[in-house]
Amino acid sequence: MDSTPDDPAQALRWLQAHYEAMPPVAAMRLRAVEADADALRLSAPLSAHVNDKGCAFGGSLVSLMTLAGWGLASLRLRAHALQAELFVARSEVRYLAPLYADLVAEARLAEGGWDAFVAQLRDEGRARVTIEASVALPEGGVAATCRSRYVAIATG
Amino acid sequence: MDSTPDDPAQALRWLQAHYEAMPPVAAMRLRAVEADADALRLSAPLSAHVNDKGCAFGGSLVSLMTLAGWGLASLRLRAHALQAELFVARSEVRYLAPLYADLVAEARLAEGGWDAFVAQLRDEGRARVTIEASVALPEGGVAATCRSRYVAIATG
Repeated sequence: MDSTPDDPAQALRWLQAHYEAMPPVAAMRLRAVEADADALRLSAPLSAHVNDKGCAFGGSLVSLMTLAGWGLASLRLRAHALQAELFVARSEVRYLAPLYADLVAEARLAEGGWDAFVAQLRDEGRARVTIEASVALPEGGVAATCRSRYVAIATG
Repeated sequence: MDSTPDDPAQALRWLQAHYEAMPPVAAMRLRAVEADADALRLSAPLSAHVNDKGCAFGGSLVSLMTLAGWGLASLRLRAHALQAELFVARSEVRYLAPLYADLVAEARLAEGGWDAFVAQLRDEGRARVTIEASVALPEGGVAATCRSRYVAIATG
């Protein structure tokens, strides 16, 4: 791509293409909605994610939150022109309330700063970061939260 | 259905139909492989679950493990002819090694016994149970583990 890594619309399109290249993620019909340096928001239609009770399937909630965190860290790597594989290593998930609406997940850094993550990856070829994601309820509050640790391993 | 609740093959077919009635689960192409009083095993083809690195997507692993636990508890409710809604309330997930093969998840009771769960649901109309699920590596060991708490709320 010709654009600079800092063009937000271009970064979102780059991320959307990465998501859609994964068959289980393409099936989720998710959309990378909005990103800035601090947060990434993804959405997905409830119709693709309903369970036996007519609300959002728990596996879909955790998948979307995991992908939001992965995408947030991927965008930070891209903004610093860093080549790395990014893995999720562990997650703590809380399912707090049933969601009867489209899924909107937002991911944010949980602790520390991106500078430390980027510096560690540059210096040691490996770095970890903890990200907090949640799925909002349309009436306020949250349907679920997911606190995950991701590990980046430099490849370039 | 006409069979007794204790017919294992019939119970697996009943569970498979429940899974396939959920759109996000139907997209996973999972199969309820084997069940007894202690464990339930589900499988799904890697082709439906590959990520950008050619191994199983983390969201797919946690979805399959969550569904295995949900299915194990559902089969216990069915065996006791109990009507209840069953929700996952929280999970702790560990992603331990990449999986480059079809997914096979197994769920088992993590602590306590089914008798206490069934008695509590009958007495109080609500009960909780903790289930440990894992996805095996074909070479031995595990790709991921998921310890989840499920809550059953009586409806009948």
